[in-house]
Amino acid sequence: MTDVKKEALKISREKGGKLEIHSKVPVKTREDLAIAYTPGVAAVSSAIVENKEDVYTYTSKRNTVAIVTDGSAVLGLGNIGPEAALPVMEGKAILFKEFADIDVFPICLATQDTEEIIAHIQAMAPSLGGINLEDIAAPRCFEIERRLKESLDIPVFHDDQHGTAIVVLAALYNALKLTEKNLTNSKIVINGAGAAGIAITKKLLTAGATNILLVDKTGIISADTPDLDERYQEIAQQTNLDHARGDLQEALKGADIFIGVSAGNILAKEWIQAMNDQPIVFAMANPVPEIMPDEAKAGGAFIVGTGRSDFPNQINNVLAFPGIFRGALDSRAKDITDEMQIAAAKGIAAVIPEDELSVDNIIPDVFDPSVVDIVAKSVSDAVSK
Amino acid sequence: MTDVKKEALKISREKGGKLEIHSKVPVKTREDLAIAYTPGVAAVSSAIVENKEDVYTYTSKRNTVAIVTDGSAVLGLGNIGPEAALPVMEGKAILFKEFADIDVFPICLATQDTEEIIAHIQAMAPSLGGINLEDIAAPRCFEIERRLKESLDIPVFHDDQHGTAIVVLAALYNALKLTEKNLTNSKIVINGAGAAGIAITKKLLTAGATNILLVDKTGIISADTPDLDERYQEIAQQTNLDHARGDLQEALKGADIFIGVSAGNILAKEWIQAMNDQPIVFAMANPVPEIMPDEAKAGGAFIVGTGRSDFPNQINNVLAFPGIFRGALDSRAKDITDEMQIAAAKGIAAVIPEDELSVDNIIPDVFDPSVVDIVAKSVSDAVSK
Repeated sequence: MTDVKKEALKISREKGGKLEIHSKVPVKTREDLAIAYTPGVAAVSSAIVENKEDVYTYTSKRNTVAIVTDGSAVLGLGNIGPEAALPVMEGKAILFKEFADIDVFPICLATQDTEEIIAHIQAMAPSLGGINLEDIAAPRCFEIERRLKESLDIPVFHDDQHGTAIVVLAALYNALKLTEKNLTNSKIVINGAGAAGIAITKKLLTAGATNILLVDKTGIISADTPDLDERYQEIAQQTNLDHARGDLQEALKGADIFIGVSAGNILAKEWIQAMNDQPIVFAMANPVPEIMPDEAKAGGAFIVGTGRSDFPNQINNVLAFPGIFRGALDSRAKDITDEMQIAAAKGIAAVIPEDELSVDNIIPDVFDPSVVDIVAKSVSDAVSK
Repeated sequence: MTDVKKEALKISREKGGKLEIHSKVPVKTREDLAIAYTPGVAAVSSAIVENKEDVYTYTSKRNTVAIVTDGSAVLGLGNIGPEAALPVMEGKAILFKEFADIDVFPICLATQDTEEIIAHIQAMAPSLGGINLEDIAAPRCFEIERRLKESLDIPVFHDDQHGTAIVVLAALYNALKLTEKNLTNSKIVINGAGAAGIAITKKLLTAGATNILLVDKTGIISADTPDLDERYQEIAQQTNLDHARGDLQEALKGADIFIGVSAGNILAKEWIQAMNDQPIVFAMANPVPEIMPDEAKAGGAFIVGTGRSDFPNQINNVLAFPGIFRGALDSRAKDITDEMQIAAAKGIAAVIPEDELSVDNIIPDVFDPSVVDIVAKSVSDAVSK
């Protein structure tokens, strides 16, 4: 076991988890008690009875998000259930606090039934300012997010789908600036057709990409494949418009962009040599990328990004979700729309001034303190436009 | 509007509610991130996969309680719904933190259906160390608490029922020490047969009282009353064993103890004169007691308690719930049993040394810092005995 893992166990045991809840008001005297609880609180409740929207004025709803999981698709660990998922949700909660000063608590549900999950989340919405869905398996996660977005008047966001997709789009915006290419005309190969791969595909399509090949273990996904998996039906109509067939190597011929959310060491440098000029390679499998950056460069990659912090151009969703929720909460958005998500990607890209862009600097550092403000403002500005 | 109410509105607006969630671990560097989130957190989740009970070792579950309401019976405000209930739940949450260092967040449910409430709470239990039910209307609250206690392996407690009842019992233990009387033989009149009155009746019966008359607006409740309300059926079998009839005045003749959870100014001092020697009067209607303390004393009351902080002997449930949950969490109790609740009452009573007991000092001050420790220890000691 690495030191990081030992340290994680030690700190979790000693601290008893990573979250605690504090009071923002004093409770030391009878007067404090009368103000914070009865009888004072009755005035606050009565104000909200008169005008329900005042729940945003007088309560923690305006800055509170619940991270909800069913524990079915946790990190690389899989379906480990709600209890074992809790440390991950706590970790995510403190990222929200640290990066965007949002108060977040985890709810780890004892069910993996789609309808039950939807009903539970709908029921708890009144005291929440937003819902971050986390580590819920596909295809259930799509239905849950869609139904909650339709039925709730607070923002709902499944970070596993959209977070990485938004940061990929941000990285692409900047990578493309360093080339003569644009998103619309680039040939994009996305390898890995799980929730993340599908989400990235959809996001790039929404952002204007027109030429995407989505590839899974069986090869390039095509609308005319017999017995195509139901979850690919929709995406197959919008990708591979030329009905190409073949494996990843075939798909990459002449491609401008490779986006990997698949497995380690599955991309040969020779395949990169067969890509178009100035190929962009985002090899985001964790912890081992689809191809190591030095190998990719040896194969001719112009720009390489990974999910790792020890290489340049780390594509990390912590660049997106804190600012997105900050912007949504600040503007009291009822939803986190496609427009807001694409604005977030543009915001992340804009953190790096054009004169500082380079092949090893297309995406800000996760600890860059300006990221959250710029993303939040971009998202707020995109509300109801 | 009083200054307290103005101040409550002001502080709620300025602070945006009363709760915030903090991280107990640092998130300032890449190493912090690796320990608190990925990849370190995978080791913590894996430990819990191997041994589910380790969720208590490594996560915030061990110190986290949810306050759950449906907003149907909030303070004196009634059925005001989940949004308007939130300020009250926040206030209660900070009392838990201030008095017992327990991390508590509110869940205000968008349903008042018994089965739905039960299902929602069952679903969210994996990440919680306990459930405090709050401001849920009777008779729904009885069924919800009973079913959750049966089905969940974490403590469930409906404070509106048990909290006040436990503190009443604590006050009675000390009041009776100042007389020649005991709980078993005293004639006790409880006025007000809502959730609180029924809960007090049940608690006193559990603690050994044998002679209780429960009185509502129609008079003394009796098992032989035609068309007796369903919610009184059970309690009527255990009270008024002599089948007395009449109103509150009649009930009080020869009584040793009056406990009011009804309405202001409904008790005449002459009725106290008709009680037994050394009458004990707990007039807990809020904000106006059933009889003002000076009037009660003029009528011959030996000991008077109220719910108000501006008179001696304030019967306030904040003396009970923080220590009860502290004790239950510390001992990892699966339930908060009758035995634990009666132990809590004895613990509260024991805070005042016998040589400091007096008619104006039968119950500790809510800010007495020794209360929570003594109650928690009493409760822990009563687990599985």
